[in-house]
Amino acid sequence: MINKIEHLGIAVHNIEEANQMYEKLLGVASYKQELVEEQGVLTSFFKVGKSKIELLASTEDDSPISKFIAKRGEGIHHIAFEVEDIKKELKRLQSEGFQLIDKVPKKGADNKLIAFVHPKSTNGTLIELCQEISGNIAKST
Amino acid sequence: MINKIEHLGIAVHNIEEANQMYEKLLGVASYKQELVEEQGVLTSFFKVGKSKIELLASTEDDSPISKFIAKRGEGIHHIAFEVEDIKKELKRLQSEGFQLIDKVPKKGADNKLIAFVHPKSTNGTLIELCQEISGNIAKST
Repeated sequence: MINKIEHLGIAVHNIEEANQMYEKLLGVASYKQELVEEQGVLTSFFKVGKSKIELLASTEDDSPISKFIAKRGEGIHHIAFEVEDIKKELKRLQSEGFQLIDKVPKKGADNKLIAFVHPKSTNGTLIELCQEISGNIAKST
Repeated sequence: MINKIEHLGIAVHNIEEANQMYEKLLGVASYKQELVEEQGVLTSFFKVGKSKIELLASTEDDSPISKFIAKRGEGIHHIAFEVEDIKKELKRLQSEGFQLIDKVPKKGADNKLIAFVHPKSTNGTLIELCQEISGNIAKST
């Protein structure tokens, strides 16, 4: 089951400049920056109601974010939906014919298990599923 | 003040095909379709938590949505933030240096007053502000 839009991922060139812009736009400051080394991105989070804006700046020339910006420019990179049970949801989506980038969830930023669905099977939109890592999940993996 | 992500606007070629795909993805059906003639778009809405997904299909060859798809393909078109007072928020953003597409709010889909902020001033992301039309607003405009 999908609970809500957990966050929107937005690809930016420069995290400091984008932080300043989003602080003015949203009227709140970034509450956290986090480096996700294995994906070559520096992230910055803003709260908006029950959802978040996650800015994504590349720390490496050949990261997915630098490739995205080279091809399409800065802008919205993905929608992340919060799910109750990410493994169950991935199975459900696969059985519905969706093409999964990650068949097995991986560790993402912000203490989450995450998995991406390929935009080829979702009308061009990169979809992330995410689930907060809790004690129970840590035990079961 | 910005309350929440009210909706995400997603540009699609064919509303019926996209409705089927999003129904499978989100596990809920579209609850409303609405034609916005002055913008040349057919919209379809899905609830996700406190936010919505708004699919946008063009009904005219030269509408903003057909131009967007011709240039960038299907995908996320804009983020809409719900604000308490759209006129006040537009003034605030203008004074902060944002470039407004609509300096005066206009009537949008889903019983809303809406106004767009130019992606040139927001790191490539088209931002919509929206406010539910209530009795008080109808009187004041």
